[in-house]
Amino acid sequence: MSDTKSEAIKQSGAVFFIFGATGDLARRKLFPAIYSLYREGKLSEKFAVIGLARRPRTEVQFHDDLLQSIQEFARYKVDKVDADWQRFAAHFTYMSLDINNIDGFKELSSVATKLEQKFDIAGNRLFYLALAPDLFGSVAHNLRDGGMLETDGWHRLVIEKPFGFDLASAKLLNEEINKVFEEKEIYRIDHYLGKEMVQNIGVVRFANAFFEPLWNNKYIANIQITLSETVGVEERGGYYDHSGALRDMGQNHMLQMVTMMAMEPPSRLHPEDLRDEKVKVLRSLRAYSSKEEVKSHVVRGQYGEGTVRGKSRVAYREEPNVNPVSTTSTYFAAKVFVDNFRWAGVPFYIRTGKNLPVKTTEVVVEFKNIPDNVYLAKKNKLQPNLLVFRVNPMEGIYIKINAKRPGSSDESQSTIIPVAMDFCQSCLVGLNTPEAYELLIYDAACGDSTYFTRWDEVKLAWQFVDQIAEAWAENADDLHIYPAGTWGPQEADELLAKDGFHWWPVNGQAESEVVWVGEHI
Amino acid sequence: MSDTKSEAIKQSGAVFFIFGATGDLARRKLFPAIYSLYREGKLSEKFAVIGLARRPRTEVQFHDDLLQSIQEFARYKVDKVDADWQRFAAHFTYMSLDINNIDGFKELSSVATKLEQKFDIAGNRLFYLALAPDLFGSVAHNLRDGGMLETDGWHRLVIEKPFGFDLASAKLLNEEINKVFEEKEIYRIDHYLGKEMVQNIGVVRFANAFFEPLWNNKYIANIQITLSETVGVEERGGYYDHSGALRDMGQNHMLQMVTMMAMEPPSRLHPEDLRDEKVKVLRSLRAYSSKEEVKSHVVRGQYGEGTVRGKSRVAYREEPNVNPVSTTSTYFAAKVFVDNFRWAGVPFYIRTGKNLPVKTTEVVVEFKNIPDNVYLAKKNKLQPNLLVFRVNPMEGIYIKINAKRPGSSDESQSTIIPVAMDFCQSCLVGLNTPEAYELLIYDAACGDSTYFTRWDEVKLAWQFVDQIAEAWAENADDLHIYPAGTWGPQEADELLAKDGFHWWPVNGQAESEVVWVGEHI
Repeated sequence: MSDTKSEAIKQSGAVFFIFGATGDLARRKLFPAIYSLYREGKLSEKFAVIGLARRPRTEVQFHDDLLQSIQEFARYKVDKVDADWQRFAAHFTYMSLDINNIDGFKELSSVATKLEQKFDIAGNRLFYLALAPDLFGSVAHNLRDGGMLETDGWHRLVIEKPFGFDLASAKLLNEEINKVFEEKEIYRIDHYLGKEMVQNIGVVRFANAFFEPLWNNKYIANIQITLSETVGVEERGGYYDHSGALRDMGQNHMLQMVTMMAMEPPSRLHPEDLRDEKVKVLRSLRAYSSKEEVKSHVVRGQYGEGTVRGKSRVAYREEPNVNPVSTTSTYFAAKVFVDNFRWAGVPFYIRTGKNLPVKTTEVVVEFKNIPDNVYLAKKNKLQPNLLVFRVNPMEGIYIKINAKRPGSSDESQSTIIPVAMDFCQSCLVGLNTPEAYELLIYDAACGDSTYFTRWDEVKLAWQFVDQIAEAWAENADDLHIYPAGTWGPQEADELLAKDGFHWWPVNGQAESEVVWVGEHI
Repeated sequence: MSDTKSEAIKQSGAVFFIFGATGDLARRKLFPAIYSLYREGKLSEKFAVIGLARRPRTEVQFHDDLLQSIQEFARYKVDKVDADWQRFAAHFTYMSLDINNIDGFKELSSVATKLEQKFDIAGNRLFYLALAPDLFGSVAHNLRDGGMLETDGWHRLVIEKPFGFDLASAKLLNEEINKVFEEKEIYRIDHYLGKEMVQNIGVVRFANAFFEPLWNNKYIANIQITLSETVGVEERGGYYDHSGALRDMGQNHMLQMVTMMAMEPPSRLHPEDLRDEKVKVLRSLRAYSSKEEVKSHVVRGQYGEGTVRGKSRVAYREEPNVNPVSTTSTYFAAKVFVDNFRWAGVPFYIRTGKNLPVKTTEVVVEFKNIPDNVYLAKKNKLQPNLLVFRVNPMEGIYIKINAKRPGSSDESQSTIIPVAMDFCQSCLVGLNTPEAYELLIYDAACGDSTYFTRWDEVKLAWQFVDQIAEAWAENADDLHIYPAGTWGPQEADELLAKDGFHWWPVNGQAESEVVWVGEHI
């Protein structure tokens, strides 16, 4: 993007309409994000936020909620009596809105217009729908019919996942929205694309002469992407039982990380060029040839009762709002191929699950080994080189290489040991890394769609996921129950073992050889 | 070497003859090294050490010297009253010896034979000459003529640098020694080859699939080797004024490090195969075409008065035993090419000097940059990737890569910053890295000549150095006086600047961007 990206939003401003303003996302992520942007001078005084939800809240109540949210979740400290806080809060208004009632939108329009005059905003409007997707269509229509889109500035719709349940429903949803908003006005959030280390994948790949020569099937043996959670479904049983791990994580976050790792260098860093390259990866995903192949390449699991970090957990089927004979998977692991010249023959192993022993997101690039018959490899059991992106909660990059065991002479079998060269971003003292939502809200306000999912990405991702879901729908013979607190079904280990590989221990996993700063070996 | 390397020395034992036993090297390095080897179980009880020097010392005095040396310089603590110490010290004998007197050697022979019987040693004898090189010949002859080489076991001669003053004198010296010892019995010490991180260069290169593909002129822009000292000539003025930086450091340590970096992978890790590859590098060193080319490719300097780390230093010419109009260089920097397929066009910049601001030995591999017109490089001033071996006093490896500045969006000029991924060996708590001399004495005792300099290496290194010395001998117009405490003549910076490069800051240098653990940025 141009250097003026930051200037546009400051000069012409915008009104942020937060639909679902009393909900969890607004409270935990959106308000704190807007506050951080303000504190960092990324917003001028030319902005307003209108909180919208059905529930009636007074202005005072809303400001109290806002303060509490920021005190609890923001990266910056705030004090109610502070003049800065007062000035910030004055930009926030609440309005109770029935989203099926067109009259409410008309009222909203006049509220917005007044705020635009008050804060000297040039008619730019960002509609953030922190709502269930089945409401997206109605909101879009009522925004139009209520006259909300008749200002001079830009109008952008920011929507949260899930974007549909499968390809068919996603298409319907998209058609509904497209009646009101053009594709380029739609910002589909996948908050993994807002994560520092996911964005860093592109920088590390394209700003270093070091990696590009190695980034292909000649040198890379496989890529492993793990997104593990330590929570169960919590209070989301109703939604989750309908969705499951594949739709909830696979279709979006996991496949997006695959595209970031696999994409060709775009010819320019313009958002559409970058998204074009991601689409090409999704288009190159090898479709499974049969339902049998799905079952041999994709492992699914559901947690049974167990213990996670000392706390006992009920089985998934005992969770509130879950069908007691549910066959929904809370875990899946898949072997995926990107059939292009760069990646032919390199498996991408992806896995995600709930109630696993560790919360972490990591991408491991395993390099091909030196042939066993070359001297050092002959006498030592050499480990392959790894390049690891630690995405969350720890942020960093490390490389695992082989080095001389200090003090060893060359007579022993253990002369060579793996050591980690690491850059631990989250270890940096005083570093206050922005949250994904800050980056994404800011990008949307600036019109930078790089890290949002374009419709053709969504479509291709559903297409890939649907074939798995369809194979699974036939019967649930291959659903493995794994005890909560374990690393999922052992079939997921066998998935790699068949190829001569294994899952590398992730950060926090007991057998991990790689630890951070100060205790490298 | 075979797995039995460690067994041979333990089973058949050896007598270590330390010539120069009252000298500095014995006290600071050799005795402590033997103690560490004993403590680590690398020696059995089948060993004896005979200290030899002209000065008379009683057995008690010698044991006191030994204890003091170990208490002051060894990696392991020792207590005089400890039974272990008593057992260790019982292996040490002293004998006053005039090395020009054959009778003394005959007496030595009978002393040695008695010790061999006492400690059940199979006639293996290691002669360590911690002496001035002009004595090597006499000692060798008297060893033979005194009957010292008539035992059944092996006989090895370990000698210290300098091995000659130039090619001619080195040849003479070698011929002298060869009258008594075969090449395979001669272990020429270059203690840099005993350093952990120098040995690690080979392991990192040949045990990682990651580096080999990048290790050539397609990806590497230049290699920089720095060996900087903070001391002046101290009490070695007499020797040094005759030798200078080029002979004292260049012919041996610096060129050896060039060979470790540049050599082709040997077909086996046998000592001769490895040394063959090093010889090939030395043979490929591009000779300077003329005396003018020497002067444009090699910068020489001599320290003037100045301040190093707060302490004032006299000019070199004011040092004791130094010619007051000396033109000896205490600093040199050279641009060297290895003319083979792998390295064609890649300059190796080497520099060493006394009274520089920092004591360090580092090898920096600078990778070629991404072309400036590729997007990320267009908007950011991208730094090249570096791979750095920190040899001394800090030990470690790091890679400098470009990563996303945390929290940056892509509008600014400083979105991308260099970060270091590091493995700091010397930061490891509780790690007690062996000294170079331990590794080398042990290797010599085991008959492993890998990290010793073979005659053809010595010869080729002198051949390369001699052409520089000859050009310098003509006149000293290009000798630059640099103030003590600075980084040498600015001509050394220009040497790189002409090629569009600069010396990367070394560890401890103020402008260094790369720091260790916990403060990576």
